[in-house]
Amino acid sequence: MEKKVLLIECPDSKGLIAQITNICYKHQLNIIRNTEYVDPDSGQFFMRTQLEGIFNDKTLMLDLDRALPQGSSRQLVAAGRKKVVILVTKEAHCLGDILMKVYDGSLKLDIAAVVGNHPDLQSLAEKFDIPYHFVSHIDKSREQHEAALQQVIDPYQADYLVLAKFMRVLSPAFVAHYKERIINIHHSFLPAFIGANPYHQAHKRGVKIIGATAHFVTDDLDEGPIIKQLVTPVDHTYSAMDMVKAGRDVEKNVLSKALQLVLEDRVFVHGNKTVIL
Amino acid sequence: MEKKVLLIECPDSKGLIAQITNICYKHQLNIIRNTEYVDPDSGQFFMRTQLEGIFNDKTLMLDLDRALPQGSSRQLVAAGRKKVVILVTKEAHCLGDILMKVYDGSLKLDIAAVVGNHPDLQSLAEKFDIPYHFVSHIDKSREQHEAALQQVIDPYQADYLVLAKFMRVLSPAFVAHYKERIINIHHSFLPAFIGANPYHQAHKRGVKIIGATAHFVTDDLDEGPIIKQLVTPVDHTYSAMDMVKAGRDVEKNVLSKALQLVLEDRVFVHGNKTVIL
Amino acid sequence: MEKKVLLIECPDSKGLIAQITNICYKHQLNIIRNTEYVDPDSGQFFMRTQLEGIFNDKTLMLDLDRALPQGSSRQLVAAGRKKVVILVTKEAHCLGDILMKVYDGSLKLDIAAVVGNHPDLQSLAEKFDIPYHFVSHIDKSREQHEAALQQVIDPYQADYLVLAKFMRVLSPAFVAHYKERIINIHHSFLPAFIGANPYHQAHKRGVKIIGATAHFVTDDLDEGPIIKQLVTPVDHTYSAMDMVKAGRDVEKNVLSKALQLVLEDRVFVHGNKTVIL
Amino acid sequence: MEKKVLLIECPDSKGLIAQITNICYKHQLNIIRNTEYVDPDSGQFFMRTQLEGIFNDKTLMLDLDRALPQGSSRQLVAAGRKKVVILVTKEAHCLGDILMKVYDGSLKLDIAAVVGNHPDLQSLAEKFDIPYHFVSHIDKSREQHEAALQQVIDPYQADYLVLAKFMRVLSPAFVAHYKERIINIHHSFLPAFIGANPYHQAHKRGVKIIGATAHFVTDDLDEGPIIKQLVTPVDHTYSAMDMVKAGRDVEKNVLSKALQLVLEDRVFVHGNKTVIL
Repeated sequence: MEKKVLLIECPDSKGLIAQITNICYKHQLNIIRNTEYVDPDSGQFFMRTQLEGIFNDKTLMLDLDRALPQGSSRQLVAAGRKKVVILVTKEAHCLGDILMKVYDGSLKLDIAAVVGNHPDLQSLAEKFDIPYHFVSHIDKSREQHEAALQQVIDPYQADYLVLAKFMRVLSPAFVAHYKERIINIHHSFLPAFIGANPYHQAHKRGVKIIGATAHFVTDDLDEGPIIKQLVTPVDHTYSAMDMVKAGRDVEKNVLSKALQLVLEDRVFVHGNKTVIL
Repeated sequence: MEKKVLLIECPDSKGLIAQITNICYKHQLNIIRNTEYVDPDSGQFFMRTQLEGIFNDKTLMLDLDRALPQGSSRQLVAAGRKKVVILVTKEAHCLGDILMKVYDGSLKLDIAAVVGNHPDLQSLAEKFDIPYHFVSHIDKSREQHEAALQQVIDPYQADYLVLAKFMRVLSPAFVAHYKERIINIHHSFLPAFIGANPYHQAHKRGVKIIGATAHFVTDDLDEGPIIKQLVTPVDHTYSAMDMVKAGRDVEKNVLSKALQLVLEDRVFVHGNKTVIL
Repeated sequence: MEKKVLLIECPDSKGLIAQITNICYKHQLNIIRNTEYVDPDSGQFFMRTQLEGIFNDKTLMLDLDRALPQGSSRQLVAAGRKKVVILVTKEAHCLGDILMKVYDGSLKLDIAAVVGNHPDLQSLAEKFDIPYHFVSHIDKSREQHEAALQQVIDPYQADYLVLAKFMRVLSPAFVAHYKERIINIHHSFLPAFIGANPYHQAHKRGVKIIGATAHFVTDDLDEGPIIKQLVTPVDHTYSAMDMVKAGRDVEKNVLSKALQLVLEDRVFVHGNKTVIL
Repeated sequence: MEKKVLLIECPDSKGLIAQITNICYKHQLNIIRNTEYVDPDSGQFFMRTQLEGIFNDKTLMLDLDRALPQGSSRQLVAAGRKKVVILVTKEAHCLGDILMKVYDGSLKLDIAAVVGNHPDLQSLAEKFDIPYHFVSHIDKSREQHEAALQQVIDPYQADYLVLAKFMRVLSPAFVAHYKERIINIHHSFLPAFIGANPYHQAHKRGVKIIGATAHFVTDDLDEGPIIKQLVTPVDHTYSAMDMVKAGRDVEKNVLSKALQLVLEDRVFVHGNKTVIL
């Protein structure tokens, strides 16, 4: 018996769940868990169904195509590990956390490679036998640097790029090349403190809580669909540097929780928001 | 167009969701939200479906009865307010919170009456024009006191009894009379500190977090199905009395959140656990 | 034996704690709890000392004045209840929570009066025997309305004004009249979503956490020193109205926690930040 | 300029803070931060003072000894890294988290060695160039096994032993040998679910929150002074194994937070409780 996840997105109409679950039943597939959502603003229907049984992918997809309205998208994802390439700069905590969680089995993903614009984290990646590519941005235009990155990244055919404190702004062309496949961790509770040095901004403002945000990357800096946010309390005794340190735990926790959601095929992108089923 | 909630509980079998949603579709009912769960230990299937449309309750129930396996229970609940009777002793915070939330519209319930074994909270209930019954336990056996309580409570035909810091242990007969309809707030993070004076026990043990638990009442003291738990941090500077004070906010928050879940028909009792859909 | 709180703020210098605690000792006062903080950026020293004993306020203050450097401020606050005037518009939850907490003894303050620019909350205030003043802003300029408010508020000689969802922007003159004595609840996790309709902004942005902020009011809208912030998780199923509802609990909790800190004389204003000892 | 932490514990008496801070002032030491606490039940005084300056440890201690009452203990701790030996069995997450936090500089400690009663984690320790000692308990009595452990541990002269999911019960003799120096992580929110298989107990009870507890080890199993507790919400969909997985993050977070407190010399043991300044 196999396990797969059926992901459907289409305009809402009466009887959709009955039609879809009927098709599953006709295919003798057992529904392990089923979640749906209709966005009241757009009228868009989202459904995630965990199925168990013997799959005939082709006829299942054909049956669904006949039943679903125009403008539908459906996808049958086999249970299994996703492949990611991780981009880093100098800070170790997010990369280290992912490496350790993959090592101890908490995160079921394959790290194809780590790519850094500095050499600092090479030895960390190599401790866990992950290939590290140092692609410096020095003496390169943004276009040249991104071309060099793509040349290294693309052969791995990764499902997702993970920006684990990769401190470079990406061009629209680069983002488009990996559409809805780049996950970033921003070190603030967005939309507070967009842009550079959010902890210094937070310190200056005297906030009592700081946070971090994992989101898909779009053209607009720090404006992509939010997957997960977490916060931690701070007080007047925290210097900006203390906030940076306290933020590290939040950053890595929010990133690994977001990855977990993505790996379980639970995240739909809908405009600049996410629907998480 | 009416809104109702369909609640189904039965042994799991393949095709259940398809059958049930087909019946809804046949009845031209729109599914607003749908949640299911199969308990892997018992193989029991639970489903909660929010429906919208024009209901023919009788034929809908007949259709379901034909489709569902033996040992099923199904219920169609009209949207609308539940009626509760609240039992209290002397402490005002849980009662006050419910009164205020009903007053400001946050909790959609009707408080039929407040019943206390002390007169202390009469004036509070009456501020909000809720009838208060003082039923003293003095000079009464437990049986006599509970008989007197029932005589006051039963005419209201309430959906639920809410023990809002009612500091009396109830007999199995009383509990059976309101089977799965009594909601209690226990002032500890169960199963830690069962029984009397949990805050004093917590203080003595030097815990760093305290909590409160809302649960259905069964024969076994503090052992009924848990609906909701919340916690709050404490430290060495808290006296037992400080913990009592800090606990008040947790108690009222957990009670009103549990009531909210119950009022939305989201809580199934399954053995000594709850399934919350 | 009396209990008082000594509050000191002055430029830092070596030996300050020794000098101050020596003076307390010389006055035979017992230190119950003592907290200090030096802001590393400004070099400002803050100290809060809970004292117990027989106080000679005058000589104690004289001794401190002799010991402390120029530019110091010191204050000896008798234990006891603060007096507040609460300003409201139409929403009941924050006012209701304060009324109930004062009623059940959780908040040790005296509510001198409630003042509203709408009549909606009059009956709520009067349930608890608190005078209510309806001061409409209709057909008045901002200056006229604020003059009318002051005329009602000032005779109460309150320690603090509490804006419990008072939906009017205040003029610099009004704010200056109650300098560092106006506490506001803003219904967002500042500095995210400054200004109007923060929940609608939050919904549109697709955030996964919402919050509320209690702060002192200054001339700059939503920019005053933050006293307390709290958050609550939301998800894609929350409409803007659901966020409003979920936010209510956060708003009232953050406001009453901020009031508690202020009532215990634990909050120092330092520039546009707070130091909370 | 050096930084040291002065730790004092003694019976409370009036003027203690003045006396101690006077001595610091006389020694021209600057007080960076100062915290005190008097336990109202025992009348014991605790004080932690962060000092900066040029230290004459010997005369400072002599001055304090003259000033402090009988039965006092005082200690001057130089800023600097503590040395720990970590004991493990098979689970990687707590060890991995400490290794990574030391690697990225979040935890300022020196891991002298890792000791395991299984060989499973040897390769993980060695990735970070930490010596690993495999000391099997097979075919050894508890006394023999503990003797073998001590033989390996003692030469390292560690400040603390950290039980990072070391799944062996320790004898009173072993515990006494490292009195108040063994830190354990228990995988439940103590005192709920003492003993074996707490997640299975939690699953059976149907709790809605699980937790973990870091504590000093004493003779009584799971009864030692609690340093830190953290929790995470669960629901009916969690199997016992899901709780184990969700618990891992809590376990490692609570352990590293407890270590942080201990490394900063902020934890006093007082009976079976902790005072954390």
